[in-house]
Amino acid sequence: MRLPVADAYTLAEKVMTKLGCTPDEARIAAGHLMDSELRGLDYAGFARMISISERLEKQGRSTRPITVLRETPVSARLDGADKLGYIVAQRATEIAIEKAKAGGIAIVGASDTWYTGMLSYYAEMAAEHDLVTMIASNASPWVAPHGGTEGRFGTNPICFGFPSKGEPVIWDIGTSAIIHAQVVLARRLGQQLSPGMAFGPDGKPTNDPDAALQGAFAPWGGHRGSGLAMVVQMLGMLAGSPMIPGELREFGYLIVAIRPDILTDTDAFKAEISSYAEAVRSTRPVEGGEPVRMPFDRSRADRAAAIERGYIEMPDTVHAGIQAILNAA
Amino acid sequence: MRLPVADAYTLAEKVMTKLGCTPDEARIAAGHLMDSELRGLDYAGFARMISISERLEKQGRSTRPITVLRETPVSARLDGADKLGYIVAQRATEIAIEKAKAGGIAIVGASDTWYTGMLSYYAEMAAEHDLVTMIASNASPWVAPHGGTEGRFGTNPICFGFPSKGEPVIWDIGTSAIIHAQVVLARRLGQQLSPGMAFGPDGKPTNDPDAALQGAFAPWGGHRGSGLAMVVQMLGMLAGSPMIPGELREFGYLIVAIRPDILTDTDAFKAEISSYAEAVRSTRPVEGGEPVRMPFDRSRADRAAAIERGYIEMPDTVHAGIQAILNAA
Repeated sequence: MRLPVADAYTLAEKVMTKLGCTPDEARIAAGHLMDSELRGLDYAGFARMISISERLEKQGRSTRPITVLRETPVSARLDGADKLGYIVAQRATEIAIEKAKAGGIAIVGASDTWYTGMLSYYAEMAAEHDLVTMIASNASPWVAPHGGTEGRFGTNPICFGFPSKGEPVIWDIGTSAIIHAQVVLARRLGQQLSPGMAFGPDGKPTNDPDAALQGAFAPWGGHRGSGLAMVVQMLGMLAGSPMIPGELREFGYLIVAIRPDILTDTDAFKAEISSYAEAVRSTRPVEGGEPVRMPFDRSRADRAAAIERGYIEMPDTVHAGIQAILNAA
Repeated sequence: MRLPVADAYTLAEKVMTKLGCTPDEARIAAGHLMDSELRGLDYAGFARMISISERLEKQGRSTRPITVLRETPVSARLDGADKLGYIVAQRATEIAIEKAKAGGIAIVGASDTWYTGMLSYYAEMAAEHDLVTMIASNASPWVAPHGGTEGRFGTNPICFGFPSKGEPVIWDIGTSAIIHAQVVLARRLGQQLSPGMAFGPDGKPTNDPDAALQGAFAPWGGHRGSGLAMVVQMLGMLAGSPMIPGELREFGYLIVAIRPDILTDTDAFKAEISSYAEAVRSTRPVEGGEPVRMPFDRSRADRAAAIERGYIEMPDTVHAGIQAILNAA
């Protein structure tokens, strides 16, 4: 079904409230989930709310508050109290922004959370305050290291953000060959995975999503990419996550925020980032190729187009799942 | 020829002194170059001294001192004064270590340098002080972005280091399909590059090292790896490097050092990093595959074996080049 963007926001807040969020938490979570939906990451929008509902049903809903375990002028460590990642990571990011603006650089880690969402969302928040960011988030051991067939880290996104004179430059990648939500979706739809994406619980290559979820996904980028995924897992450990988190729990979130003027002139730096993005986009393409893009260009364009269009499309199965949440006792 | 390790150190210091280093600088540069030599990175040891000599001859030798341009309790920005990167990066790393030990986290950037060497060298230095590090170094535009055929960034290494109960865990990669020094070496030896590694100045794929050096190398890792290379270029810009540095000059070096106890218990963290490395190494390998390695395991083992063996092997051509430097007026 087709849903106007404003109505979709209202619906998202309503669903998150039904799932136990306070009004503030529901607003934060809905903002993040709708941003995913507008960028066309349909598995991370309304469909994700169904996964959140299932996870809460299976593992219970935390009633503990998020607390600060350690704090210095340039750092904070939060206990995420098993709360939804969008809320915990937003809080961690806000603290990092405040401390970096005051002290020049800040690091904030949060433990015991899950579903931290798109790290680019937090990088955009910080870039509005002219801050450079490095953000990482680890997860359950769904992915095997290069040369191995058993899970040792999550799909582990890492992100860097740079303020510019216009839109910030953001690089936000996952470090696995395939996204967890894509495998879950393939299982729901009875589809097979492409070859080379996963190992079954027996350690043999598999295209079956169910076997992949019991086994492990392949990493991205050979030994270099696999190493980066391990870096993210260890940055998560620095934020207080155990080395092998449980299923959809105990994730870590780590953000470093930097005020450029502690090293260089902020205005000149922002102008140079803008110029650099243009220099990359104007690179002569490979023969017969498309124009060269900067990271995030496509995602940003998709979002702008959805807002311009004014509505989102929701598959019937997702709509039914959302209605089931709202109608639950 | 075969050279005992102790004699090789003495020779390296002698060569670097001849190239204009003070005794302190010669000791630092020789330590770094010998570490590369011992790890089997022969293009980055004595052979590199020949490249340094050629570069100094072509572009002149700086007599300016390294200076501090900006400083806060948690940051410093150095002007590298066109001095050799090993010396500038070592100084930046020492400042980062000192400030992070005092304040919990520190960032140090250095501009106007060249040949910063292996970033793992600096990560090892910081890990000895129980510090986590993120280090990046940009370079001349030798490498094309994904989908492009003109250089927009360097071979741009990035490195993360984590202290453990034993050897630190270090991830240190270059972000191009091929290393600059390997292309230079292929040109010297009259060899061709493997297909897919480079574009000529006309934008067409080439296997000719000379054309590659006039054109651009391919990035590593498709759009994700290409994006990471751009991140390194922009981190270099944050350290004061121009977006497109000149040939073998104006590189940037950026290090962030973190004291784990601002987020978690340092001893427990170090023990967990050790356990994690063991958990990765004990992953069931792919069928018929080698045991899974952690990043840096092989490089560390190569170095230990060379020290145990007690000597290095120097090709005759390199030996002749070194002698020519020592015999120059």
